[in-house]
Amino acid sequence: MKAVVYKEPFKVAVEEVPDPRMEHPNDVIVRVTSTAICGSDLHMYEGRTAAEPGIVFGHENMGIVEEVGDGVTSIRQGDRVVMPFNVACGFCKNCVAGYTGFCLTVNPGFAGGAYGYVAMGPFIGGQAERLRVPYADFNCLKLPPGDEHETDFILLADIFPTGYHGCELAQVSPGESVAVYGGGPVGLMAAYSALLRGASKVFVVDRVAERLQKAEQIGAIPINFTERNPAEQIKEQTGGEGPDKGVDAVGYQAQAHTEEREEPAIVLNSLIDTVRPTAMLGIPGLYVPADPGAPDESAKRGQLLVSVGRAFEKGLRLGTGQCNVKRYNRQLRDLIIEDRAKPSFVVSHELPLDQAPMAYEKFDKRVEGYTKVILHPQG
Amino acid sequence: MKAVVYKEPFKVAVEEVPDPRMEHPNDVIVRVTSTAICGSDLHMYEGRTAAEPGIVFGHENMGIVEEVGDGVTSIRQGDRVVMPFNVACGFCKNCVAGYTGFCLTVNPGFAGGAYGYVAMGPFIGGQAERLRVPYADFNCLKLPPGDEHETDFILLADIFPTGYHGCELAQVSPGESVAVYGGGPVGLMAAYSALLRGASKVFVVDRVAERLQKAEQIGAIPINFTERNPAEQIKEQTGGEGPDKGVDAVGYQAQAHTEEREEPAIVLNSLIDTVRPTAMLGIPGLYVPADPGAPDESAKRGQLLVSVGRAFEKGLRLGTGQCNVKRYNRQLRDLIIEDRAKPSFVVSHELPLDQAPMAYEKFDKRVEGYTKVILHPQG
Amino acid sequence: MKAVVYKEPFKVAVEEVPDPRMEHPNDVIVRVTSTAICGSDLHMYEGRTAAEPGIVFGHENMGIVEEVGDGVTSIRQGDRVVMPFNVACGFCKNCVAGYTGFCLTVNPGFAGGAYGYVAMGPFIGGQAERLRVPYADFNCLKLPPGDEHETDFILLADIFPTGYHGCELAQVSPGESVAVYGGGPVGLMAAYSALLRGASKVFVVDRVAERLQKAEQIGAIPINFTERNPAEQIKEQTGGEGPDKGVDAVGYQAQAHTEEREEPAIVLNSLIDTVRPTAMLGIPGLYVPADPGAPDESAKRGQLLVSVGRAFEKGLRLGTGQCNVKRYNRQLRDLIIEDRAKPSFVVSHELPLDQAPMAYEKFDKRVEGYTKVILHPQG
Amino acid sequence: MKAVVYKEPFKVAVEEVPDPRMEHPNDVIVRVTSTAICGSDLHMYEGRTAAEPGIVFGHENMGIVEEVGDGVTSIRQGDRVVMPFNVACGFCKNCVAGYTGFCLTVNPGFAGGAYGYVAMGPFIGGQAERLRVPYADFNCLKLPPGDEHETDFILLADIFPTGYHGCELAQVSPGESVAVYGGGPVGLMAAYSALLRGASKVFVVDRVAERLQKAEQIGAIPINFTERNPAEQIKEQTGGEGPDKGVDAVGYQAQAHTEEREEPAIVLNSLIDTVRPTAMLGIPGLYVPADPGAPDESAKRGQLLVSVGRAFEKGLRLGTGQCNVKRYNRQLRDLIIEDRAKPSFVVSHELPLDQAPMAYEKFDKRVEGYTKVILHPQG
Repeated sequence: MKAVVYKEPFKVAVEEVPDPRMEHPNDVIVRVTSTAICGSDLHMYEGRTAAEPGIVFGHENMGIVEEVGDGVTSIRQGDRVVMPFNVACGFCKNCVAGYTGFCLTVNPGFAGGAYGYVAMGPFIGGQAERLRVPYADFNCLKLPPGDEHETDFILLADIFPTGYHGCELAQVSPGESVAVYGGGPVGLMAAYSALLRGASKVFVVDRVAERLQKAEQIGAIPINFTERNPAEQIKEQTGGEGPDKGVDAVGYQAQAHTEEREEPAIVLNSLIDTVRPTAMLGIPGLYVPADPGAPDESAKRGQLLVSVGRAFEKGLRLGTGQCNVKRYNRQLRDLIIEDRAKPSFVVSHELPLDQAPMAYEKFDKRVEGYTKVILHPQG
Repeated sequence: MKAVVYKEPFKVAVEEVPDPRMEHPNDVIVRVTSTAICGSDLHMYEGRTAAEPGIVFGHENMGIVEEVGDGVTSIRQGDRVVMPFNVACGFCKNCVAGYTGFCLTVNPGFAGGAYGYVAMGPFIGGQAERLRVPYADFNCLKLPPGDEHETDFILLADIFPTGYHGCELAQVSPGESVAVYGGGPVGLMAAYSALLRGASKVFVVDRVAERLQKAEQIGAIPINFTERNPAEQIKEQTGGEGPDKGVDAVGYQAQAHTEEREEPAIVLNSLIDTVRPTAMLGIPGLYVPADPGAPDESAKRGQLLVSVGRAFEKGLRLGTGQCNVKRYNRQLRDLIIEDRAKPSFVVSHELPLDQAPMAYEKFDKRVEGYTKVILHPQG
Repeated sequence: MKAVVYKEPFKVAVEEVPDPRMEHPNDVIVRVTSTAICGSDLHMYEGRTAAEPGIVFGHENMGIVEEVGDGVTSIRQGDRVVMPFNVACGFCKNCVAGYTGFCLTVNPGFAGGAYGYVAMGPFIGGQAERLRVPYADFNCLKLPPGDEHETDFILLADIFPTGYHGCELAQVSPGESVAVYGGGPVGLMAAYSALLRGASKVFVVDRVAERLQKAEQIGAIPINFTERNPAEQIKEQTGGEGPDKGVDAVGYQAQAHTEEREEPAIVLNSLIDTVRPTAMLGIPGLYVPADPGAPDESAKRGQLLVSVGRAFEKGLRLGTGQCNVKRYNRQLRDLIIEDRAKPSFVVSHELPLDQAPMAYEKFDKRVEGYTKVILHPQG
Repeated sequence: MKAVVYKEPFKVAVEEVPDPRMEHPNDVIVRVTSTAICGSDLHMYEGRTAAEPGIVFGHENMGIVEEVGDGVTSIRQGDRVVMPFNVACGFCKNCVAGYTGFCLTVNPGFAGGAYGYVAMGPFIGGQAERLRVPYADFNCLKLPPGDEHETDFILLADIFPTGYHGCELAQVSPGESVAVYGGGPVGLMAAYSALLRGASKVFVVDRVAERLQKAEQIGAIPINFTERNPAEQIKEQTGGEGPDKGVDAVGYQAQAHTEEREEPAIVLNSLIDTVRPTAMLGIPGLYVPADPGAPDESAKRGQLLVSVGRAFEKGLRLGTGQCNVKRYNRQLRDLIIEDRAKPSFVVSHELPLDQAPMAYEKFDKRVEGYTKVILHPQG
């Protein structure tokens, strides 16, 4: 079958690779109808991880079930399904507790597995014609048959739940004000989720005009961090004290506010500065324990200078980590089905699989409005 | 009346100061029967804060109500009461939400007030014969008459709830394993609270022999960090993966593990290393936004190098901040009354007020078993 | 001053009564600008309670502060405020825990107080020109000055929080389906709150056409219980299994489904039948321990035949009781201020105080669209 | 193999039945080392259910894994395991949400499955030499090898988690007072769990002397309901207001307080009377939707006269339903392993399988101290 294969930094190719095959009675094989390129794929694409050439990318996947293992109970051939980016067993201590992003079974020696991602286990990515899904009863979320809402449902694999996770970690609740740093796909999903949860006032901090416009479109207040200290801008609009909650949808590759360089802790520290005492911060934005491309020695080891004293003085609580997609995807699916959520507003492009190399290049450069690309391997 | 007055770094004196007087219809005046010296008093005593000479110390106070304002409803003359170290109004947004450590009323311009503490508002300390208590209906917790459990009840003002708060922030629940860094009074109270909450296995990390003995005495497992990497020691005793939860009962004046020097982030980073993925950390140990005596420039501004990447990879959640004593003191009082908790095992000395200067000196040097000192201003 | 006085069953009059005066340093006097007639006033109006002639009605009150006691800190003359219908002290065990509807201080011998309501303490109602508010710092919620949103804000005194409370007791969360029994003001507020909280599908069960229309207008699905078994209608629209959550916004004066008579347990039992296993039910609808007008002897003592066996088999959880308004009113106010909630869609009439007798009569008969009446005592 | 077979009301026999065999790749076969007789087996034994002759009893099972299906990942031959009484799939909506007692997969048309129980699906009971366990990765809890703690671990199948579930439904937390109705095995486990969770004061209500003695032994306060109204007795010992929480560990076959007859709602109504306003009630005691042997027509349909009015006035919350054992069994196991819990104090007899008929008879008559019987099918 055809698949998107990583060749070297800044280069992927669509190549023939072996078809996936059933490896376990609980597996299914899915014919991929939609698969998205994720901001976190770019870390590998840019060579800022230990990903080796040859890896097939793709952790945001949906499609039609083609083959079903003997041990599978609830999934049938022909079912339309979307899979969490996390691969999870469903029965380990962490999965049972709802921490499916930290499964202890699927990726021995590490807590958590994913498709097509370096160090996340032996699971081939879904930017391909077909995908093997292990523990299929647990990992497949059934969708209504047909092709309605395809570009909404594909976002259930990662970014809609991940944005929502930011709000869940911050326990965003009705009537609260929320500052979301980052207006990329995850940031917009976080802001959108905050509004779905009944927030009274949501701020989105970024510098890219079209992101800020999208934020405004969905009812959030855009804050351009290049214009003035974003914490100050937000405090002014929250009675001087700062919002009740905050979400970091940026992570370690954060942009300094006044110069063109990375400043890995700037979003964390800005959030600590922005929110009011007793706030909670949700941090779905990625931080890594080893970053060879980091601007300094500490950051290379994943250690950042954090305003711990200020955070303590304010009594802040922080939640971090990958989204446990399974915890939210059914409920978010139901919002889409009932037309109460339409996350596809973030999708900028839908392309056939063979345009993946071009799409990666443009998405990486963030040009021509390439904010969120869906690939359709079946054309 | 007599009171413990701060004179200069490493010097306090017992001096005559003006008696407190009623300033508001909701005030009461309490004749102090017990008042404790707290580890956090030593920050001021050592001159590592902005505290000015003349301040009366004492935020852990109990006694008998002598005078009652016209607006007070539930407190009468002769009532035996203990006060949270936090002064709180009971009606601001934060108090109503249970964040009484972050009251927006009592210390204008700041979230949170306390008795006898620098920058915590105009509230004179209780290491004195008498104490004015504002918003008395809210701030006084009634105790059974008499003098039973005096050394247990005085601990309800701060360290018992503060240790418990560490467990609450970490959501310690039955059957879990917990690592507590710090075997001082707060650390022991945290370990004790974890056991009261049904933890299956509690570790206490310190280097002082008598603290580790007390930990063992209450059913915790002592870990001497000078012997070997405490994270490794604890992982070995938790199936290799680390405990479910962690508590930092040390704060910024932490001791490096292998040399004699302060290393402000060592406890935070050790905890991140110690616990298992998906863990929660409760951080009642104090961190400050400005520390003139810190070992480096960043630490002087309250910024510490934290293993953010590792924390994210593990999906950790962290809770910080001063204890909201009011949230727990009634329930903990009831455990004392029913003889199900006896926190006074941490008390090493009970002294008359005029021995305060000697007690401060020895407590600061941590000599002669001075771990927790209670002063009795009425003799 | 003028006030609405209960004379005898089915009769109120607007009469001169003594002006309220300051009784305690924590009191304020409020000049009432809006005061609503509540469905629960009708229980007294119809003579189905122990209310004695002479009582001044009115527990949904807002206005401008005229006089301020010496002990009051945060409220000033001229402030525009709305009061929870519950009178609460703010410092008793229940208030501190957030159960302000069950205050142990204000109504000795009973848990909970209210303005202008039989057995709820000595608090004169606010369907009058002026109102004394005790513990004003705790009981007054400040509003933006001016007269904007007046008909939205007045609903913060009771029905908006009470509807919301139904959702809170049922822990309605994003993506869930919810059945609300009762399309009166509280039922509509419950449905509206469910949607604000992100429910995917909300049903409103009633038989009154205009209520069902209002339900549809806000995005809920109307279910007419006279057409067919409402549980069946709802199950059909929730995949055969029933909704995730349920709210009883009717209470004991419930209408039998197929005949014209009261059937006090029909809503409870219909809800148990309607919802899916593991559901939670929020029951803000009133049930009383003594109802002289009940259809049978058991019901007169407040005992009803409930499908306990079915509830257990489904593993249901139920939450009952009066709303703790203080727990929600600030957040709901902020949604109104930010134009994210506009609960005044339930208001049918705004009238001067002297039209109260007519309004009571029509509201009680539910004629001419009298669904929710606001009185303006200042004209 | 040999198994305990139900023959007719008040009669079981140990007979040869076919050995279980692997039916699905996710199955394992367990050689049963311990299996307990449960109070709920007596409902079937007494003929008060629809159970047909021929059914093999036994839903509290543990043993050694003998055979392992191809699809099983985490369980190996020779593993010592204990199974929740609920059979659950691990991947349906309810299992994923933690409601494993309400699995939607294993017992089509009903929410929830169990071994050896009428209407709970096609799962043969474990009072036998061998047991088939479906979805073994999910349903087996691994235990330390050997035979230590055998009588503690077997209680993890049902009664220890079920008692704990009562406390969880009531959200029993440190410092609270709790009234447990019922001093049988589940009631004692509930009281024991309340103490493990840090309750300050626990009452156990029963009339059987030896149960009340056991309650006292573990630190609870025994209340004999035949001596005087238990609600009054308990209120007197809780400052007149009643305890914070309540647990119903009796269910529908409750005994009237002053005469020898069943009174199905007496425990529910006593609890409503006993607890203080704002309390929560956990109701693990069984209520059924159809009881042919009930004392009246309503009770035969599972409808009971409940003091709804009083419950509402107090603002009570109630949680019902079968225990989701999987939610608690790992944590409770860890308490046993660490010697912090020793639930086997309730076990009165350990017998070989062939003495089951005698054990059922005596347990049913509650004679000769037969409070909790463990059968050892391997002798």
